[in-house]
Amino acid sequence: MQAIVIREVGGPEVLELREIPTPEPVADQVRVRVRATALNRADLLQRRGGYPAPFGAPQEIPGLEFAGEIDAVGPLVERLRPGDRVFGIVGGGAYAEYVITTERMAVPIPANLDWIAAAAVPEVFMTAHDALRQAGFVAGERVLIHAVASGVGTAALQLVRALGGFSIGTARTAEKLAAARALGLDLDLPADGWLERLGATVGEVDVILDLVGASYLQDNLQALAPRGRLVLIGLQSGSRATADLSLIQRKRLQVIGTVLRARPLEEKIAVTQAFARQVVPLLARGVVRPVIDRVFELAEAAEAHRYMERNANVGKIVLHVST
Amino acid sequence: MQAIVIREVGGPEVLELREIPTPEPVADQVRVRVRATALNRADLLQRRGGYPAPFGAPQEIPGLEFAGEIDAVGPLVERLRPGDRVFGIVGGGAYAEYVITTERMAVPIPANLDWIAAAAVPEVFMTAHDALRQAGFVAGERVLIHAVASGVGTAALQLVRALGGFSIGTARTAEKLAAARALGLDLDLPADGWLERLGATVGEVDVILDLVGASYLQDNLQALAPRGRLVLIGLQSGSRATADLSLIQRKRLQVIGTVLRARPLEEKIAVTQAFARQVVPLLARGVVRPVIDRVFELAEAAEAHRYMERNANVGKIVLHVST
Repeated sequence: MQAIVIREVGGPEVLELREIPTPEPVADQVRVRVRATALNRADLLQRRGGYPAPFGAPQEIPGLEFAGEIDAVGPLVERLRPGDRVFGIVGGGAYAEYVITTERMAVPIPANLDWIAAAAVPEVFMTAHDALRQAGFVAGERVLIHAVASGVGTAALQLVRALGGFSIGTARTAEKLAAARALGLDLDLPADGWLERLGATVGEVDVILDLVGASYLQDNLQALAPRGRLVLIGLQSGSRATADLSLIQRKRLQVIGTVLRARPLEEKIAVTQAFARQVVPLLARGVVRPVIDRVFELAEAAEAHRYMERNANVGKIVLHVST
Repeated sequence: MQAIVIREVGGPEVLELREIPTPEPVADQVRVRVRATALNRADLLQRRGGYPAPFGAPQEIPGLEFAGEIDAVGPLVERLRPGDRVFGIVGGGAYAEYVITTERMAVPIPANLDWIAAAAVPEVFMTAHDALRQAGFVAGERVLIHAVASGVGTAALQLVRALGGFSIGTARTAEKLAAARALGLDLDLPADGWLERLGATVGEVDVILDLVGASYLQDNLQALAPRGRLVLIGLQSGSRATADLSLIQRKRLQVIGTVLRARPLEEKIAVTQAFARQVVPLLARGVVRPVIDRVFELAEAAEAHRYMERNANVGKIVLHVST
């Protein structure tokens, strides 16, 4: 099969389309003929040598999500059959014509999503949905989403809205905020000075999903309501932070760290199955939808990485696998 | 009735024994003839003007816990009767001959506890038990307790042991560590350099109950295992802290702030009832027990406050109400 291989640690130019052996499914594994995959920031880190693939995942082939059809199944596969359209997350290896995964981590794709749309779903919707679940989000709550025009941000704001919450988002540019508003964001705030702009809502935010990190910590703690929850999903602004712990204690806050890729199998399956039960029906009804910024061909992976590094995308950068 | 009243903001000398009107129970309230109460650090803060009593609690009478017998009941009281021995927490007012509380916040005292022992129980055992519940502590986990010879610390270490956990504690003096060992502490560490002394257990602690605060934050995050939980119960060392948030994210930690007094009624009742179901049976069987450092008479409240300010106590300082 053809796959994008990281030739060596380096820039986008180290991504090379190569012919490598097609993997075989065993036990409860399915082999998926990948029709599209999508970029994640972790792919850039992995290419630069900073984020090795977990044990068991292909070490040199990036790609954390896939959409495609089942092509072959192991003898212990119960329900999925060749030809089934499925999507899901993997620890790596999705920049390829074929990917192997466990049956319980491959979810049937709703009929209204084509390959490109489906490939833009798994990482961001599972991350956003799982973060809201970890935060114990319930209808009626105010949720502040930093970097709201990012993939996870656009998924989160739609889920908050679909599940009965009030969504507040920050982003660095007017374009990004406009894109988030078009998806239903209830209140948009510029990244600079967002706390002041929150006004009367300071101290009344129930949940914060933060993809920015250190520089926002103290402001996040101030923004939260008593019993508020701050979920740290990303740390793009750095990780060393100073804050007033008495805010955490007095308001009885929770600060929750989360990362998807490093989890053990049973937890990834649990995240996948919760997504299948709760998010896929919303996708099927069109209540939430993936946001696609741009589509590249698999062979153009290097160019796609360069594009992501410019930080101008709103929503997902998809790789179409037409080989 | 006689009660200790905070005459004005100030030192221990502002605590004055006075004759004031005896309160009357209405609705679902019970009046308790207090036989003993106990000191909490919050009492010192309140006396200094830094921690006002919550709405509805006597503003000038300190005292967050009581042991005594029911003396009168309101018309909506269902089960408790005059003469019943009960203990519990209140928002204030327990440095007095009588205190009013809601029936659901007064718990029958096991027969094996006398008034002094019973008065040393509610705040520390409810705080420790509730903190372990918030942390999602389960049998088999390692729990690190800072200031382990404190009231909450000694309650926590006994609960961890009784519920199947492994207890690790830090304290500032050899005497305090010896006292904690005598109560069953599995591993004791000096407060200076505790992280280094943890050795191979660094990165393997499941739960930390922290009464110290800011100065320990970064070390706490390092000590925790993946999915570990840090519960901030007290901030004696200060509240401004710097730490590496990537530890929280990568290890998927939770930092949980907690405080008992400021909670709404329904939560205080929930804490009380969980204590009644899960901790009182352990007290009745002698599996856990209150730790009493010293007993003063109610009229000696000022002296008792001075004693607490010396920070040398191991366990609770009790006020006996013999008037």
